[in-house]
Amino acid sequence: MADKPNFNGWSCPLPLRDYERIVIGHGGGGKLSAELVEHLFLPAFDVGVSEELRDSAVIDLGTAGLAESGGRLAFSTDSYVVRPLFFPGGSIGDLAINGTVNDVAMSGAQPIALSSGFILEEGLEMATLARVASDMGTAAKLAGVRVVTGDTKVVDAGQADGVYINTAGIGIIPEGVDIRPGRATPGDVVILSGPIGMHGVAVMSKREGLEFGTEIESDSAPLNGLVADMLAVSKDLHVLRDPTRGGVTASLCEIATTADVGIAYEEALLPIPAEVAGACAFLGLDAMSVANEGKLVAIVAPEDADAVLGAMQANAYGREACIIGKVVDAHHGVVVAKTTFGATRVVDLQLGEQLPRIC
Amino acid sequence: MADKPNFNGWSCPLPLRDYERIVIGHGGGGKLSAELVEHLFLPAFDVGVSEELRDSAVIDLGTAGLAESGGRLAFSTDSYVVRPLFFPGGSIGDLAINGTVNDVAMSGAQPIALSSGFILEEGLEMATLARVASDMGTAAKLAGVRVVTGDTKVVDAGQADGVYINTAGIGIIPEGVDIRPGRATPGDVVILSGPIGMHGVAVMSKREGLEFGTEIESDSAPLNGLVADMLAVSKDLHVLRDPTRGGVTASLCEIATTADVGIAYEEALLPIPAEVAGACAFLGLDAMSVANEGKLVAIVAPEDADAVLGAMQANAYGREACIIGKVVDAHHGVVVAKTTFGATRVVDLQLGEQLPRIC
Repeated sequence: MADKPNFNGWSCPLPLRDYERIVIGHGGGGKLSAELVEHLFLPAFDVGVSEELRDSAVIDLGTAGLAESGGRLAFSTDSYVVRPLFFPGGSIGDLAINGTVNDVAMSGAQPIALSSGFILEEGLEMATLARVASDMGTAAKLAGVRVVTGDTKVVDAGQADGVYINTAGIGIIPEGVDIRPGRATPGDVVILSGPIGMHGVAVMSKREGLEFGTEIESDSAPLNGLVADMLAVSKDLHVLRDPTRGGVTASLCEIATTADVGIAYEEALLPIPAEVAGACAFLGLDAMSVANEGKLVAIVAPEDADAVLGAMQANAYGREACIIGKVVDAHHGVVVAKTTFGATRVVDLQLGEQLPRIC
Repeated sequence: MADKPNFNGWSCPLPLRDYERIVIGHGGGGKLSAELVEHLFLPAFDVGVSEELRDSAVIDLGTAGLAESGGRLAFSTDSYVVRPLFFPGGSIGDLAINGTVNDVAMSGAQPIALSSGFILEEGLEMATLARVASDMGTAAKLAGVRVVTGDTKVVDAGQADGVYINTAGIGIIPEGVDIRPGRATPGDVVILSGPIGMHGVAVMSKREGLEFGTEIESDSAPLNGLVADMLAVSKDLHVLRDPTRGGVTASLCEIATTADVGIAYEEALLPIPAEVAGACAFLGLDAMSVANEGKLVAIVAPEDADAVLGAMQANAYGREACIIGKVVDAHHGVVVAKTTFGATRVVDLQLGEQLPRIC
């Protein structure tokens, strides 16, 4: 694998000031989202950009006033605006549970409580809301977490596409666990927990009324059990990330930037189901940038790779886990892919999101 | 005060099944909201209706797995959909901070972290978003709490009225503090922290372009400092409630129902500013049912009343605190008002909300 591609000048950052208005891409989890956070939210909230951003914040209860405890909490939130509300393999309801459960789990925490905030459109059918709530309840039970507090607002007809949901989640991080993007280290192995691209393609095909022969179902699933199984064989997992908006590409690019390391993967090793590959070819999408809702990327020390991979494959949500690449001490901050033809190309974070309103 | 009005039959509960679609009132914090929670969300989330609902959930870290700690967390969420985004005395930004800070504080907790979830409308001016975010940052600093995690989604133009915000908050409940609606006890004193009705009237007058001579400003404010000052003189506060949607009436009705006690207040003691009274008369509103965003209702044992009242009046946000009534061992579950003419009337929870989209 060529470790030193010429990547100087390939990135074309667009400063926030060039956008006078919000565009759909600002919600896509790509560069525009990152710029909005870096240039607008973080300064407003007085958070230094040097602080390591991750799927969930970590709160040290010791410094927070519970001095007798050395415990740490993971705290995360996501809003869900997916269209349509129901799609093959899931709905906005189970997505709202699994998405936040997974964000909390990506710091190694076991989620203990969720909040739910509903914004409902006047005129929404009660039966639709009941179905969404029921999906949430079922998903929460499956994840072993409870929705403990909530809020409901109603906005005028024509707003909110029926229902938007926000969930926030709290989890407890086991002692000795320190999982964060900054810990990716040259030599580490990059593991994917299973086939990718299903969620995005399932939502898109339903939304656009497309059929691809076989129906592709969303992979929406809670991953906290999988993470617990992985931690049982190695407490020293370096990085976990659920590749939702922006797909695996966005996760790897963010990790490479945060840890200032290179990441190299082999396209031939990517678990892309044939149906997803076909749909992506048809729709002009890159499967590596399509959202997943039941997958994770793990970066672990090489000596832990076999044990972690084995633990993942023994769990229903990691049965098809596989190694796709490694962390390298070269092209720092950049992800490269080795193509099936043996060439090497730079993989860049998308500006916005290929598929808007995917979660 | 007549303690036994004939209230049999005055309530006309509307079962959820009579509504096939969501109406604006389902988001109003009144009976319709309560029915939606009781008949739709709680069964879906498998939460027993017998569990005491309050502004924030309480999570025992001991039973949650942090065994070495006896600490308890308060956890709460609210979505903010107020129109217009900016109004006299505040904006959706400081409301989103203060509202959740206050919900957490109503269990006696000091908030330690907030999450923020933005749903933005495509085309929203960046300058507007920056102003909202700046208001959030300023409010968070004033409350002494940090926004530690967030999420941004963008929906199509024509949705979301510019911006909806969800915040969730975590706080730590001091040891020995047990504040909840169920603790209202006959003999207890009902204290209001200051003049009421300002937030609702400020938003409504701005929205409708009305002027009432003097401009009425929202009372949007963080109350965690006030609560800390109250706890410093009595750890045994029985009930705290921030009278937002549905106003003081909704708070008192919920407390009376939850604790199965009667509550009686005197209209002559109510701190209703003349401008608010005038605006309410003009708009046909009941000031006691208008939303507040910087006030609290406290219910305390009679022997603690003087000390707590004194502590409140010494705090900038409780300077005009006053006693408005008491908890009685009569007309259980019902709130009554003694009118200025000496008559007694039953005060009922509103069906929806007089002023939609108030927070």
